[in-house]
Parts: sequence; structure tokens; C-alpha cells
Amino acid sequence: MTHRIAIIAGDGIGTEVMPEGIRALEATAKRFNIDLEFATFEFGSCDYYLEHGKMLPDDWFEQLKGFDALFYGAVGWPDKVPDHISLWGSLLQFRRRFDQYINLRPCKLMPGIKSPLAGRKPGDIDFYVVRENTEGEYSSVGGKMFEGTDREVVIQDTVMTRTGVDRVLKYAFELAQTRPRKKLTSATKSNGISITMPYWDERVVEMAKGYPEIAVDKFHIDILTANFVLHPDWFDVVVGSNLFGDILSDLGPACTGTIGIAPSANINPEGNFPSLFEPVHGSAPDIAGKGIANPIGQIWSGAMMLEHLGYKEAGDAMVTAIEEVLSEGDATVLTRDVGGEGTTASLGKAIANAI
Amino acid sequence: MTHRIAIIAGDGIGTEVMPEGIRALEATAKRFNIDLEFATFEFGSCDYYLEHGKMLPDDWFEQLKGFDALFYGAVGWPDKVPDHISLWGSLLQFRRRFDQYINLRPCKLMPGIKSPLAGRKPGDIDFYVVRENTEGEYSSVGGKMFEGTDREVVIQDTVMTRTGVDRVLKYAFELAQTRPRKKLTSATKSNGISITMPYWDERVVEMAKGYPEIAVDKFHIDILTANFVLHPDWFDVVVGSNLFGDILSDLGPACTGTIGIAPSANINPEGNFPSLFEPVHGSAPDIAGKGIANPIGQIWSGAMMLEHLGYKEAGDAMVTAIEEVLSEGDATVLTRDVGGEGTTASLGKAIANAI
Ligand SMILES: CC(C)[C@H](C(=O)O)[C@@H](O)C(=O)O
Ligand SMILES: CC(C)[C@H](C(=O)O)[C@@H](O)C(=O)O
Repeated sequence: MTHRIAIIAGDGIGTEVMPEGIRALEATAKRFNIDLEFATFEFGSCDYYLEHGKMLPDDWFEQLKGFDALFYGAVGWPDKVPDHISLWGSLLQFRRRFDQYINLRPCKLMPGIKSPLAGRKPGDIDFYVVRENTEGEYSSVGGKMFEGTDREVVIQDTVMTRTGVDRVLKYAFELAQTRPRKKLTSATKSNGISITMPYWDERVVEMAKGYPEIAVDKFHIDILTANFVLHPDWFDVVVGSNLFGDILSDLGPACTGTIGIAPSANINPEGNFPSLFEPVHGSAPDIAGKGIANPIGQIWSGAMMLEHLGYKEAGDAMVTAIEEVLSEGDATVLTRDVGGEGTTASLGKAIANAI
Repeated sequence: MTHRIAIIAGDGIGTEVMPEGIRALEATAKRFNIDLEFATFEFGSCDYYLEHGKMLPDDWFEQLKGFDALFYGAVGWPDKVPDHISLWGSLLQFRRRFDQYINLRPCKLMPGIKSPLAGRKPGDIDFYVVRENTEGEYSSVGGKMFEGTDREVVIQDTVMTRTGVDRVLKYAFELAQTRPRKKLTSATKSNGISITMPYWDERVVEMAKGYPEIAVDKFHIDILTANFVLHPDWFDVVVGSNLFGDILSDLGPACTGTIGIAPSANINPEGNFPSLFEPVHGSAPDIAGKGIANPIGQIWSGAMMLEHLGYKEAGDAMVTAIEEVLSEGDATVLTRDVGGEGTTASLGKAIANAI
């Protein structure tokens, strides 16, 4: 069975780490006898926008919908195209039109990676953030009135649907069930955001009835961010709305020191459309073009993709290879952000070899 | 000149730390010859709600508006009254009706307080979070449709006005001007929240024109929370919307290890209504009634109140007294949360003595 993967490298370091992601995937495919077929697309980047006046061609949906997965680099280059145009014109379209309603990110202390938190070591922190990925605070409903005057008022709706909330909660509860600690934490702010957030809480209570073996707690987002720093060991599966999930899934990897190398999966669990896998880091215009970007986020995203395609063992092997190369700590191999003097390619090759 | 202070202790440990806050204020008033007059109110607590069916009496506005400041403990006790009722019925009313449009919180590494961040010491972290405190994501506009069905949809508006955004930005820029580093960081999410947040960014650019000597940068809230953990030394004055400010002003003190002792000021800069001073910590039902709550947040809030009333030297003296007692590290005096075996009263008395 051939798995067709669409490659969109995007902008900046996205184009530099992508080849290493592919290298690692090819090595894994060979070892585990998986049949991957890659097709590369130029759209979904700011350069494409500058040429065509849009981030994607009109028929992007038709072009991509038949693939088994999308492997994305990074998008955005504010000096060329404002972020809200480049992101809404690409990544956020994929998430929404392909109904990738789960954004999943592991927060894990890795060997050889320095955590900014005092006294934490590998094994201490290991949790997932499950983020709602299609609705909530990221709406396109709203507008401006009395523009340009002192009475100017700008309004944007947060929109939560029962369908949207329940399905992300269901996914999170089922994920918690696969974990040894069977614990789920809900991010809320029902003490301040008085309409949507109490609704979110209600749906959590309702959903929890179907999962009596899961220990459920909730925190308001303000103190929850504090607890990520103070008690990262408390967490197992954390579920949040689009915005809260966004925040927590950057803060979590920051606490484990892995923000530059963390992966993320935008998943359509039913599989009626392709899911999308991308590193957490952005396009990093400041270091783009130097060949020094760390490719681990891209490679680790590839591991999540293989797991999603049904090859858990192969995905695990990729993560193990990453951990091995990090543990070895060879400065000629590692990139600068993790204490080495190597390049994107030297680190990518070492991981491919380890696989 | 007599300054009339309204005291509202609220719930849980609010009622325990308040007497220590008053003790410290009285000591300071004596030393600096300030004339303070306290009046105590029972409303604004969950017990009041249970008795009267509302958090505040109908004429609360009339009763309180003539005071020079409100000194608040903590409100909320979810087992008695749901948070969105207790908070919206009290604290959030004060903030809104008294137009306390600034929420100001210092994030400062203090001597003797362990930061959860590796390798940081007093002096390394010292910044302010300025939060918009009356509008934005904390709106009361919205509702539910198709209730109880699969089509259920819940909507809540974020509302930003030019007046509301500009005045908090102005305050933040002027605060930055009083600081040696003259740096301002704006919290945004204009790449995802595509209507209100680009507007916020626009107003920052506009306001910055009037303050050419201030160095301005901005971060999206997700990476900004990460940077609080990774680079807390980058920040000087950080300004954010109601929700973003809320998150950052818990996360900031968490990073400095001071979340249990940090103060906050809800300020009406024009002074046409009283400002409100309260510790960052909540009512902490879990430790209420044991006499072990740390009163520093309440005392430090008192210091901010004196500074607001025009007694900067007196406020500074209170903070110095706190720092002294923390530095001494006498375990019989300090409460458990900061490594001692003392009580709310032992710590409160020590600080009052130091003053
Ligand atoms: C209790 C809650 C409504 C409040 C807020 O979010 O404003 C609190 O978290 C705060 O920051 O003062
Ligand atoms: C780039 C931005 C729109 C995006 C988001 O907020 O969803 C990013 O931060 C992410 O988390 O994937």
C-alpha cells in the first residue's frame, strides 16, 4: 500500500528543515518497509503570495484532498506578507477545510536538552496538549464600526459549537485512556469569560460521565500557565480551546526546553481528509538562509505522521533515533541551539543514520 | 488630609490576610505620618451572597464611590457560589463601574524566594504587566442558540474600543518612560485572532509615535508565554488585553516564584473613582481557616495603594520591610509556602515591626 504525502515547505527555515524531514522518513520507510510517495508543492508560502497575490491556488483543495497526509515546514514572513494574511491564507485554511480539528503536541523532557526549569530531568515531564483546532477564538466573525473616530469599536466573536467542543473532548478523553496515569486537565476561564467558557466546562462534565476511569480536573488558564512552570509533573493530557491550546502548546515545550524542536499534528481523526504534520517552530526569518536551523521538529513531526498512518513502531524508532543523537551530544553534529557547532544537514544526517 | 479606605476582606484566606495588611498599613501610616481611616464592609463575599442572593447590596456604588481606595482580600468559593457569579457580581463590577481600567502587577524576583526557573537570582527579573481591565475578552455580550441540541452554538464577543485600547497603551508607555530601560512589549495574537488583535497592533504603532524614546516590540501570546520562561530578563513593561494581561500577570509571578505573594492594583488613573488593591492569590479554600496563609500579597498590595495615594516613599518602605523579613529567613516567622513554620500572624507582625 502506497502512502501519498504532500510536501509543502513554506517559508524561511521551513525550506531548510524539510529535506532533513524527508531524509529521516526515507530512512525509516526503508527500514520498516513502508511505501511512501512524496509530491512537492510550491504554494503555501509568502513567495508564492508575492507572485500570485494569494497564498494558495484556487484549486488547492482538489489538489491536496486525495493525499494521505500533508507534511508542512513553516509559514510566515512578516516583512513580506502580514501574518494574518499568510496564516489565514494557508495553514488555517488547511486546518479548517480538511477539518483537522485536533492539534496534538507532546511536551516531553528529552535527554541532552536543557530545561529552563530548575531541577527537572528526563522522565519528569511527559504530557500532551490537545487543542481544538477549527473554531473558538479563531473565528472570522466580527468587524469594526465608527472607523477612524474616537467611538471606534472592534468586535470579534468566539464561536463554540457542541459538535466542535464535544469531538475534541472525546479525542482527549480517549487519549487519556491510553496513558498509564489516565488523567485529563481542562483549560478554562469560566470565572472571567462568562458565556463560552462556562459552556466548555459543562461539556467537560457531560463528557466525563462516559469515562469514569479518567481523573478529571480543570484550571483557569491564568493559573494553569503558572502551574505549567510550577508543577509540570501534574499533567498527563491537557485539553483546551483553540486559543488556550495554542498558548499551552507553546508554553509546554518551552518548559521542557524543546520549543525549537517540538512537533505538532493537525489531525482529522476520521481520516476523511488528510491530516497535517508540522514543527512547532515558525519560519524564523532571523536565522533563515544560514543552514543552522535545527531539523528535529520536522523529523519528530514525521514520526507523528507515521504513527498516524498506522506505523507506531516506525514512529517510535524515529523518536528513539532523535533521543540517541541528542544523548551522544556530539558537538560537530548538533546545531547551535542545542549547544553544538553543526548544521541542519549534519544533524539531519546523524538522525537518519541512527534510524 | 485623611484618606478613607474601604476594606472588603471577601472569602477564605482573604479574611485571614486582611488584618495583617491593615497592621502593616497602620505601622507605615504612623512612621510616615499618614492619616488613614478604615471602614469595613461585609459584602463582596460568597457568604454575603448565600444570605442575600447577591454579592453586593443595590447601593454599593453609592456606598463606595466616595472612598479614596478599596483594599480587597480575595473573592470566590466555588463550592458555595459558582465563580462566574461571585466574580462578576463583585470584583468585575468594581473594575468596570469604577472604571479601573489598569491592572498593574509587578513581577520581581525577591530575596529568599525560590524561583522555579534555573539559575535566576534577585535583580535578574523585574518587570511590570499592565493589563486592560474593563473590556476585551471579558465581555457580557453573546448567548446560546439551539440549546440542548446537536446544533447548539455559543457565541461571545470580544469588544475593543479605541478609547479602551488607547488609554491602557498610554498608561503603559508612560510607565515605560519612568523605567531605566524604557522598553515596552505588546502581547498580541494577530496571526490567529484576525479582527480585534490586528486592531490592537495598529493602536500600538499609532501610540508609539508619541513616545519615540521607548523601544517597542511585540510577541504573539503563545510565544510570549514561552519567552516569560525562557527569557524573563527581556521584559520591562508588558502590556496586554484583558485576557492576555490576566494570563501574563499570573505567569510572570509564577516565574519569579512569587505567585502566592504578588500584589495587584486595579487603577483608575484619573482618580474620579476609587482604585482597588488586592493580592494576586485567590481565596484558597483548601488552606482557609488554618491561619497559615502568607499575608505578603495583601501587604504588598497595601504598598501599591500608598504609592497610588501619593506616598511613594512609604510604599517603598513597606516593600523593603518585606524584603528584609524574607532575607532574614527566620523559619519561626515565615509561613510554610516560603519554607517556614510560622503563621499568617507571625509573618504579618514581623513585617509590621520591620516597618
Ligand atoms: C477571578 C478572575 C475573574 C480574575 C480575572 O481573571 O480577572 C483573576 O484571575 C484576576 O486576575 O484578578
Ligand atoms: C501561526 C499561528 C496562526 C498558529 C496558531 O496560532 O494556530 C501557530 O501559533 C500554531 O500554533 O500553529
